[in-house]
This record gives sequence, C-alpha cells and structure tokens, in this order.
Amino acid sequence: MQGEYHYTVGPYPDPVLEIDPGDTVVAETHDAFEGAIETEDDLPSEVLGDYLNPQNGPIYVEGATPGDALAITIEDIEPRGPQPRGTTCTVPYFGGLSATDRTAMLHDPLPEIVKKLEVTTDGTVWNDDITIPYEPFIGTISTSPKIDSVNALTPFKHGGNMDLPDVRPGNTIYLPVEVEGGYVYLGDCHAAQGDGELCGVALEHPTNTTITVDLIEDWELEWPRLESDDFIMSIGSVRPMEDAARAAYADLVTWMADDYGFDEMEAYMLLTQVGHVRLGNMVDPNYTIGAGIDKAYL
Amino acid sequence: MQGEYHYTVGPYPDPVLEIDPGDTVVAETHDAFEGAIETEDDLPSEVLGDYLNPQNGPIYVEGATPGDALAITIEDIEPRGPQPRGTTCTVPYFGGLSATDRTAMLHDPLPEIVKKLEVTTDGTVWNDDITIPYEPFIGTISTSPKIDSVNALTPFKHGGNMDLPDVRPGNTIYLPVEVEGGYVYLGDCHAAQGDGELCGVALEHPTNTTITVDLIEDWELEWPRLESDDFIMSIGSVRPMEDAARAAYADLVTWMADDYGFDEMEAYMLLTQVGHVRLGNMVDPNYTIGAGIDKAYL
Amino acid sequence: MQGEYHYTVGPYPDPVLEIDPGDTVVAETHDAFEGAIETEDDLPSEVLGDYLNPQNGPIYVEGATPGDALAITIEDIEPRGPQPRGTTCTVPYFGGLSATDRTAMLHDPLPEIVKKLEVTTDGTVWNDDITIPYEPFIGTISTSPKIDSVNALTPFKHGGNMDLPDVRPGNTIYLPVEVEGGYVYLGDCHAAQGDGELCGVALEHPTNTTITVDLIEDWELEWPRLESDDFIMSIGSVRPMEDAARAAYADLVTWMADDYGFDEMEAYMLLTQVGHVRLGNMVDPNYTIGAGIDKAYL
Amino acid sequence: MQGEYHYTVGPYPDPVLEIDPGDTVVAETHDAFEGAIETEDDLPSEVLGDYLNPQNGPIYVEGATPGDALAITIEDIEPRGPQPRGTTCTVPYFGGLSATDRTAMLHDPLPEIVKKLEVTTDGTVWNDDITIPYEPFIGTISTSPKIDSVNALTPFKHGGNMDLPDVRPGNTIYLPVEVEGGYVYLGDCHAAQGDGELCGVALEHPTNTTITVDLIEDWELEWPRLESDDFIMSIGSVRPMEDAARAAYADLVTWMADDYGFDEMEAYMLLTQVGHVRLGNMVDPNYTIGAGIDKAYL
Repeated sequence: MQGEYHYTVGPYPDPVLEIDPGDTVVAETHDAFEGAIETEDDLPSEVLGDYLNPQNGPIYVEGATPGDALAITIEDIEPRGPQPRGTTCTVPYFGGLSATDRTAMLHDPLPEIVKKLEVTTDGTVWNDDITIPYEPFIGTISTSPKIDSVNALTPFKHGGNMDLPDVRPGNTIYLPVEVEGGYVYLGDCHAAQGDGELCGVALEHPTNTTITVDLIEDWELEWPRLESDDFIMSIGSVRPMEDAARAAYADLVTWMADDYGFDEMEAYMLLTQVGHVRLGNMVDPNYTIGAGIDKAYL
Repeated sequence: MQGEYHYTVGPYPDPVLEIDPGDTVVAETHDAFEGAIETEDDLPSEVLGDYLNPQNGPIYVEGATPGDALAITIEDIEPRGPQPRGTTCTVPYFGGLSATDRTAMLHDPLPEIVKKLEVTTDGTVWNDDITIPYEPFIGTISTSPKIDSVNALTPFKHGGNMDLPDVRPGNTIYLPVEVEGGYVYLGDCHAAQGDGELCGVALEHPTNTTITVDLIEDWELEWPRLESDDFIMSIGSVRPMEDAARAAYADLVTWMADDYGFDEMEAYMLLTQVGHVRLGNMVDPNYTIGAGIDKAYL
Repeated sequence: MQGEYHYTVGPYPDPVLEIDPGDTVVAETHDAFEGAIETEDDLPSEVLGDYLNPQNGPIYVEGATPGDALAITIEDIEPRGPQPRGTTCTVPYFGGLSATDRTAMLHDPLPEIVKKLEVTTDGTVWNDDITIPYEPFIGTISTSPKIDSVNALTPFKHGGNMDLPDVRPGNTIYLPVEVEGGYVYLGDCHAAQGDGELCGVALEHPTNTTITVDLIEDWELEWPRLESDDFIMSIGSVRPMEDAARAAYADLVTWMADDYGFDEMEAYMLLTQVGHVRLGNMVDPNYTIGAGIDKAYL
Repeated sequence: MQGEYHYTVGPYPDPVLEIDPGDTVVAETHDAFEGAIETEDDLPSEVLGDYLNPQNGPIYVEGATPGDALAITIEDIEPRGPQPRGTTCTVPYFGGLSATDRTAMLHDPLPEIVKKLEVTTDGTVWNDDITIPYEPFIGTISTSPKIDSVNALTPFKHGGNMDLPDVRPGNTIYLPVEVEGGYVYLGDCHAAQGDGELCGVALEHPTNTTITVDLIEDWELEWPRLESDDFIMSIGSVRPMEDAARAAYADLVTWMADDYGFDEMEAYMLLTQVGHVRLGNMVDPNYTIGAGIDKAYL
C-alpha cells in the first residue's frame, strides 16, 4: 500500500517501506494514468495532469550500499480493480509513428483515441474477434540515481521506464545500488505489449505485483541486467536506437567476460551468431533494447 | 551457375537467366568474401579486394513490369564446398561495437580475427563445447532499382543486404519490380546469425540455394515484405535505427489497412500490443528492422 | 559567492540568493572540474570525483511563477584565479571522436592528455604559435525543472549544459520558469570553444560572471531561446542530432508565428532560405543545436 | 551544353565532354525540377516525374586516375532563363519538419505550396518586404563512384547532393577520382540557402556555372574536402547527423595530421576550441556537415 505516488525517482523522498534482503513485497500499482482515464470519452489531452506514470516506493533495502546490486525477482502480477480495468490510447504528439516534442514537425496531431478494455488473467478482450493473451510485466522499475531525480517516463542506467516485456514473472532483474538502501521504485504494469510499445501506450492496468528483493554485494552494474531460466540479458536505454543496441551488447560482452570466462573478442564474435535482441520501447525519452544470449552457450 | 558475380545491383548488366513466373531456380552462391579467406591466417585487410558480397543474377522474370511485385519463396539452402566451409571474422573499422568510416573515431582498430568452421546441416562447430544449429537464410536478396546501381553491402527499398534471419526456407519475401524483368540478385547466405549481426560477419558459407519466383501483378511495394506460415512482416532499412523501425511499422500499418481491412489507427493501436520486431543488421550502411504481426490477429 | 556547489539542478536545495527582477548578479564560477586539475600531470581519471560541472545557485527570482520566462542577459565574463587558470583535456571514453558509455564499443580509450593554459582577456596561449582569442560564454545555465533534478552535464528544455557559444556577453537567454522563483543555476564558463566542443572539454576556466535577470510574465517556453542585437534563436537539446535541429527549428517557427506574425508554412519556407544553425555540443547526454534568423527578416 | 541530363551519377554513361586538367567549363545547369514547375499552380505532386535533380556531365578529365583527386574551383554562377526563374516549394512527405519515407509516420502531409520568384544577381525578391541576397552555390557536384550509380539526391563520399553553401564562387572543392577520367557531374544551383535546407527546397534556379577543374595526383580522399581563402573544411554525409559531424571532423583531423604536421590528438584538442561546423542539408538521404578550421591556425 502506497500513500502518495511518485512521478520522479530519486533519493529525495522518504522510504515508504523498509525491507531485508530476501523479503517479498506486494505492491498495489496504479496504471500509468493513475486511473484518470475512466471511460472512452476521457481524452488524455483533457483529463491527464502534468505528471504521468505514478511509481510505488521508494523501498529501502537494509544493507544495500553503493557498489552493490539488487536482484529483483518478479513473482506474480495480477490485475486488480473494477472492469474495464485496461486502458490504451493515443496521446497527441506522442508515439512511435507520430511527431513528438523531440522529433518535432509541423503536422497536426494524430487522432486521439481511448480504448477501455476488460482485462483478466485469461486475456484482454480487444474486440469480438481478438483476445490478447495476458502476458503481464512491469513497465517501470528502478533504483534511485545517486543525486539526480529522473522523471518516471525516462529509462536509463537506473532502470526506469524500459517497457521491456522480459521483466515478467519468473525473471529476475538486476539493478545498481547508487544510494544507501537502493530505493526501489516500480509501477506501470502492462497486461501485454508488442515490441516497441508502438503508439506509446500499452495495455495499462492496475495490479497487485509481487516481487522478491535480494542483495548482491559488490557487483557494480553500468546498465540493468536480467536473467530468465534460459538466458541472460543486458539492457541499454539511450538514443538513437543503435546506441541502445550498442550499450546493451557491449554490456553483455563485459558480463560474459567478467562472469563466464569469455575473452571479449570471442564473446563479440559468438554474439554475432547467437545473440538475440528485444526492443523494449521506441517511444520514451530513451529507447530501450535488451541484448541476450541463451545460457546453453555460456 | 553464375559466370561473373556482381558487387553492385542495378539495371546495367545483362541477365544471366530468364525464367517464367513460378519457376524454381537453384543458385550456387559464394560466401560474402568470394572464398578469399581460406585459412585463419588470411586476414581480411590483406586478402580482400575492393569489392565484397558477390551476387548471383540478375535473373529476368518474364512479364515482370514496374508496379508489380515478385514473391520469392526460399525453398532450400544447403551448404556446399570443401570443409571448413564456414567463415567468420572481424574486419578493421567495421562492426557494431567498432568505430567505422561512418561512426568515425580516433581509436585504433579492434583485433582482426578469422575463424574457419566446419558447417553441415547438423550445425556449425564453433568449438569443442559449442555447436550452433544450422539455421540458414539468405543475407542479401533484391530486385534492381530503377536507375541506381547499389553496392551489394547496402540494404534499402529494393531489398539487398538486409541480413534478416527471417529470409529463411519456408518463408516468402516480396520485392518491388522497378525494371522490366525485375532483375533478381541474391547471395550472402548465412549458416546462422544473431540479431544485429553484431561484429558484421555472420557464419558465411557457400551454398546451393533454391528459390521459387512468382509474380504478383499490380502490387506496388515501398519496402520489402515477408510472409511465413504464422506472420506477415514489413522490412525497413535506413539509419538511424529508430527510422528503420518506423519505416517497417508504418509499412505494416499500410499493409494491414490495404489488404486486411484495418483502419490505420486501429492497426497502429493493435500493433502496440502484439507487434513483434526482428533486428536484422546493425552494421551495414542501412540498419534493417522487420516488424511483424501474427496472422491470428489478421 | 557560493558555498556548496551543485552537480544536479532541481527544486530540492534552498536558494543561495533571492533577487528581484532586473537585478544584476555577479557569480564566482568554478571551472567544470572544480579546480581539481591543477597541473598537466593531474589525469582526469585519477583526480576527478564522481561529480562534475559545479553549478552556482539556485537564485530565487521574486515573483517568478510557472508559465513565466526569465530573460537573463550576460553582461560580462572575466577570468579569475591564478595562472595557468585555463584547462582542457581528454577524458577516457568521453568526446565526439571517442567511444563513450552511450556509443559503446570495444576499443581501448584514447590517450588521456591535460593542457594547462594561460587565459587572459587577450586570449588563451595555446602554444608559441597560437593564441586563441578570448570569446567567453556560459557553458551551463538553467532554471529548475518542475520535479526532476537533472545532472549538470545534461542540457534539455530547462537549459543546462548546452555549451552554445552564443550564450555570450551582450546576448540574452530566455529560460522557462517551472517552479516558484525560477531557480537559476549557472557555471562552466569557457574562454573559447569550437562548434560541437569536439573532445568534450573546452577552454575551461573560473570566472566572475555578471548577469542581469528579468522576468517576462506569461510566456511559456518549450525550449530555451536566445536573442542578440542581430538575431533570434531557438535552442534544442536532444539525441540524435537531427532531432536537436528539428526541435530548434520547429520552436523557431512557432516563435515567428506567435510573436512576429508569420504563417507557419511561410516561416518554414523562409527559414529554408535564410535560417542559420549553430552546433553547441556533440558530446553531452543531449546534443545542442541553435537555429536562428536575422532580425532583418522579421 | 548538355543533351540528356542524368538523375543518377555513376560510371555507366558516356562522357559529354573531355577536358584537360586546368580547363575551365561553363555548364548550363537546370533547376532541380528541370523546369517543370512553371507557375505557382504547378504542384510538385502533379507535375514532377520520377526523377529529380538533373545533372550535367559526366565530364572526363584527361589523366585522372583512381587514387587522384580533382580540385574544382567554382569561378562564377549566374542566373539564366526567363523570370520568374526562381522556385521554392514544399513537397509532400519531404523536408526537415515533415514525416518522410524514412522518418515514417501516420500524419497527413503538410500543405503543398509553390513560390515562383524573381532572381537576379541583386537578390531574390521574396515579398514586398524581403529580398534575399544572391549568394549562389552548387547544390550537387560529384565525381563518379567506382561501380555504384547513386541517384542525384544522395550525398556521400563522392560528393553529390550536399547542399552546402560553402561550395560557392571563390572556393575549391576536392573530390576523389574513383574511375578513369573522374567523371564530374554537377547541377542543382541555389540562389541562396539557409543551413539545413529546412523544407527541402532552396531557391532553385537555372544557371550558367563556371568551374575550373584541376588534377591532384596521388591524393586519396575518403570524403570531399573544400578550401576557401580563409579555411579548410572536410565534408561528411551520412545519417544520423552526429555521424556526419564525426565523419567530417575525423577527416579534418586526418587532413591536419597528413598535410599540416599536427599530431592527431593535438588536432583533436585544437579543433575543440576553434573548429567550426556548417550544416549543409538535414533533408536528403544523407545529412551533410562540413567541419572546418581557419588557416590562421594551421
């Protein structure tokens, strides 16, 4: 349970919860609009306030010290709240096939459309013909930067709004500890999402999200990393998109060299043949790419 | 059988073969180095000539007229030639984690390393521990641009060096007809490749590649498209990488609207939830991204 | 006089100074290394701490309210401190022709070189043959974002580390007011700089910098703007660089339409013929481009 | 006098003229639309054919051999043809603040507007209030690539559609010789242009353009270079724009090292303080940036 949500993640607020390494936490996450879009007549340009993407936290992890990493395993994500609890929409001057404040143009905005959708663990009812399987994940999860406070829409080295579907139940994400206690923030769970989160708004929904937070001492991370049963993955978030891919793959080379005994050039050449790439988002202030390799090759 | 190979694809050479729509062709493709790297002591900077990526063709397709499209189904790819028939390497100032002539820097080049590898349909023997499954595809396939002649290393609207693993046996690629006869070129088959072709050189190998070429009249394509049993995909090749993603997804929206009855905004919002992205290359003069959607949603 | 400097600009610290609109302030700015590089043997990788680019401020401007703008006129910049007071250097994995954490590669870093230089208002003595004219400007100047706290190395809509030589004595920069009092930060004065700040470190030097701060009520700015005797300029800071150019030019079109009576398309077409572009930096987390038009055309 | 113009530059057509090094040539250039836009009612989307930017040439230079360079001095550019001889316009899905085929979006196109303008050596009459000074330059000039034939809209290592205002009377551009005779193409003269050629179409006009072509033996160029009385400049054309800046500055470092005795790192650090950047175009298939240094520093 969270009192006030946060729209920027940093070291400045007081923790809402203190936990020990190994503890499991259930967070009642809001949707990215903090519930403000209640019907298909609620246009984003009219009902949304200045701030988006409310974050739960910060959670203080006892003993977490700069230079450590947190290993956060996503245990479960369950939809909550009254139906239709799912929301997707287009937002003026936002999205992958729209002019934006950064890719600025002189076009009129695209049409503004809201869809309210029934979401259960059986899927999201898109229309009479299409039900999209429930494949939930955490869109935004981070620790706190050292001195900056970064708005909740931006992914970067601290994690944040990566919108990467691999941050799903069963997988573990590794995040850097930059301040005492690490300060975990999370929110923005999606009931499903395609690669790139094309129009900028996935199947947003409020959830009960269960995570277990472990501490790995003395593991300095430059970028977030992730592990599933089958693969390891480094996650880069930067623009342009090729730099996100470079950052992700370069970090994966380093990881393979440091922890799996590869020569760097050997890792580079092997990834050329068997590396896999997942596009997280192509709409946020930084684009996110995950670069992974199957454990069978490690 | 090809006499002289081509290093640039355009309307200027004479066809080596004329076929009818529906004909099946077997091409003896060279590897991307035209076999010049014979041992692990043959450094690319010493043995390679001015031109790379030899192309078979052009193949003239009877009746193909500008405004049509060719549907080229990849039937089979088989390795050929004496072992070790596989080659991968690093090339100075080329590759995804290297300074290049375009991303120019003041660094010394990375080490130049050649690997010669045994390739069979059972896989590529990387080392004693690792055998990489044989998952062959055509790295470079195109029709001819209308008046330009584009070097074989560059992917763009005509196809070309996309290095997209989905161009594999069982799938069909659609390419625009820009000149009478279409002029099909192909080459550069890979025994396997990771997303992005990170170091710039996949598991290159000579092959016997079998394709069937059909003609689709009056179907104007802006970008190459692809179809498998399960999905349809549009393929964008441009820099920066986000523009490749935009071109691919925008073309897919158009395809869904033109041929599957979607409203454009509806297609845009649905792809946000279920679209998938495949990174072809992040090393060639244009980066290549395929954006697809499962047929179940169409 | 500043007590503690700031390495991140936001609404969280207390103001060091409260002024009225129209007041003139003299700031004792540090160099970007806070003086830590004292000799040519002080390598950045050894002597620099975690934080760079110390900022003076925040200065609270009475009456400044969100939706207003501040007009900050640079009155004078004078070098201060003992000679050699100028510093430039290369920093490992930083700079325009170097691999960086964002444009990540596998290269070894470029050589690390420090130059300590005599700086006076007559110029900077580069070597026996070359003296670089003293053309000082403020490298980093901003107001506070609304809720974020952005590190002092990053330029964006609030201003920040734009490294744009047009922010020089005689010119006025316009910055948005996002919090009560505006919260002006500044620092990082350069004795001269080429377009792009190529290696990432200009002629850094401590100064006495004099500014006059005026308040313009009800003028909402999306990006910083600048005015000289001869031209007006909008300043975009984002990656990739074409988006910085788009943001700057699009904002200039808006400015010409809102305040000078142009039709937007007419402004667009006129700028095509007479617009001018200044590259600020090509090395910071966002690249900075200023797009301007001579007042003669307004 | 040119018979048929060319829309793609390569080694395939026969030369229209053979000259000796040192010869001066007067070319009757067309405007970029080959005169097809005759009135303000001639919309580009209706009157333009498949091909744009007609090029004069190729001119064969006796003795020019691969590995040499051509030094082409622009002697004079004079407007020709009946008034209103100047044309600018917007073209659907083309331009710096428009969605394009490469930066693909779902927006409707911007309005299509044509302006026909009186151009004399006194200037271009924009409207009753504004006359734009006549500052003519060659928008497109190149030698032939070795085997490719590149459409006339694309700038790259061979030169081409750079749209860089420094290619003006009094200055000399250096281009690589890739084929016997060099094969000089030129066209697309502008009566004036702002940095970036924002909407994609400058003040296009037909001209008599006078150039002198000299041969520099054994000077291998990677990118075009330029020299004025006051500065030298390297010209990079690639996407994204930061890579154009990198290519230009890196080539300038090489030039300073090879021909002016600089250590590379010294050149890098000096350019940081005194280098200047000119944005050519931000609208063509590759963006163009020139990076220069005043001769006073050499």
